[in-house]
Amino acid sequence: MKIYDREGAPNPARIRIVLAEKGLEDQVEFVSVDLIAAGQKQDSFLAMNPIGKIPVLELDDGLLISESTAITEYLDNLDGHPTLTGRNPREKAVIHMMQRRAEMLLLEPVDDYFHYGTPGLGKALRPWRMPDWSGAKEWGTRRGAQAVRGMPYFNDLLAKQPFLAGEAFSMADITLFAALAFAEVSGLPIAKELTALAAWRSRVSDLPAVKNRSGQHLLPEDLARLSA
Amino acid sequence: MKIYDREGAPNPARIRIVLAEKGLEDQVEFVSVDLIAAGQKQDSFLAMNPIGKIPVLELDDGLLISESTAITEYLDNLDGHPTLTGRNPREKAVIHMMQRRAEMLLLEPVDDYFHYGTPGLGKALRPWRMPDWSGAKEWGTRRGAQAVRGMPYFNDLLAKQPFLAGEAFSMADITLFAALAFAEVSGLPIAKELTALAAWRSRVSDLPAVKNRSGQHLLPEDLARLSA
Repeated sequence: MKIYDREGAPNPARIRIVLAEKGLEDQVEFVSVDLIAAGQKQDSFLAMNPIGKIPVLELDDGLLISESTAITEYLDNLDGHPTLTGRNPREKAVIHMMQRRAEMLLLEPVDDYFHYGTPGLGKALRPWRMPDWSGAKEWGTRRGAQAVRGMPYFNDLLAKQPFLAGEAFSMADITLFAALAFAEVSGLPIAKELTALAAWRSRVSDLPAVKNRSGQHLLPEDLARLSA
Repeated sequence: MKIYDREGAPNPARIRIVLAEKGLEDQVEFVSVDLIAAGQKQDSFLAMNPIGKIPVLELDDGLLISESTAITEYLDNLDGHPTLTGRNPREKAVIHMMQRRAEMLLLEPVDDYFHYGTPGLGKALRPWRMPDWSGAKEWGTRRGAQAVRGMPYFNDLLAKQPFLAGEAFSMADITLFAALAFAEVSGLPIAKELTALAAWRSRVSDLPAVKNRSGQHLLPEDLARLSA
C-alpha cells in the first residue's frame, strides 16, 4: 500500500494513528505531498482525489481511497477484527456519530480558521482560498470562534466517560485528538477550565499507537519553512 | 424505535430511504419536528442532539443516534446483512469515500446556500444564521456556486458506472439523491448538459425504496407555509 500524505498534517495524523493501532505501519510506503507548494491542488494529485486533500491510500491493485473515515474503515476491517469503527450496529452507530461530531464541532472549523483566518500554509494555496472575496478572513475568524465554542461539549462528555464513544478508544477519539492538535498549532489551545478535555488529551497522547508518533505536534517543519 | 425528523427535509429523506430499503418502515414511530419554528434549536431537542439537526433515532432502550451516516450504519447492520454500507473492507471504503464526496461537494454547499444565500426556512431560524454579519449572504451565495461546480464530477462518474460506489446502490447514492432534490428546491437544478446525472437521478427515483416516498420532492409543505 502507498499513502500520499504529509507528516505532521492533521488528517494524515489520523491515518498514521490507525496504522499504528492496527500494526500496519511497516506495510505502507509514504509519499510526501508538498502542501506549501499546493501539491494537493495540482492535476496529478486531483486525478487521485478530486477533493484536493491528503491523505490518499493507494492499494497494490491501484484502487484509490480518500477521506480519512473511508481509509479508516478499510484499514480497521482488513483483518476481520475491527477495533476502531465498531463491532456491532450499536458500536458502529455511536462511533460514527461521535466521529462526525468531532469533525463538525472542531476539526472542520479549525481547518477553516487556519486556512482563512490565519496566514495558513502561505501564498501558493491562496488561489483556493476565495482570494476574490474580502469577507473570507472574517468568515475564517468566525469559524475559529465556532471551534472554541465546540470544545466544552467534548470536555463535559469526557468528564463522564473515558473515551468519546464510551469505554473504548475509537476512530472518534482519533478525529478529536487530531483536531485539538490542529487547534493548538492554529492558536486555539484548550481553555484552562476544560480540565477533562486536557486530561483526555494527555491520556490519548500516551497510548502506544500515539506516543512518539505523528499527531502530537502538527506541521512543525512546514510552519518553520514558512516563517524562515 | 422513534425517529425525530420532518417529512420532506433532506437528511430525513436519506434515512427514510434506508428504512424502506431495509424493510424497517413499520418498526419506526416518526415524531415531527417543526423546522419553521426552529424546533431543532430548542433545549429539549439539543438535549438529544447538541448539533441541533434532524434526524435523530431513539432506540427502545433510550440510546440516541444522530448524524445520517451513523443512523444508516445502525439500520443497515441490524440484520447482519449490510447492503448499503459495504460487506467487506473495499466496499466499505469506496462507499464511505463516495458518500463523503456527495456531502462535501453537494449536500453541504446546498445546505449552506439554502440557509444563508436564500430566505431558507424563514425568520425563526435567523438567530442561528450569523445575523450579526453582513457577509453571511455572500458566503451562502458562494456556497451555491460551489454546489453547481460540484455536480459535473458526479455526472462524469455516473456516465461510466451505474451507481456512485460501482455496480450496487449504496449509502453514497442516497446522499447524492437527497442532495440533488435539496439543490432543486433551493433553485439549483441539474444543468441540461449533465445528462448522465439526470438519468441516474431518474433511475434512482424509480427504485422500490425511493418511488412514491420522501426524497422525491423536498420541503413542499413547509415552503408553502412560509410563502402563505
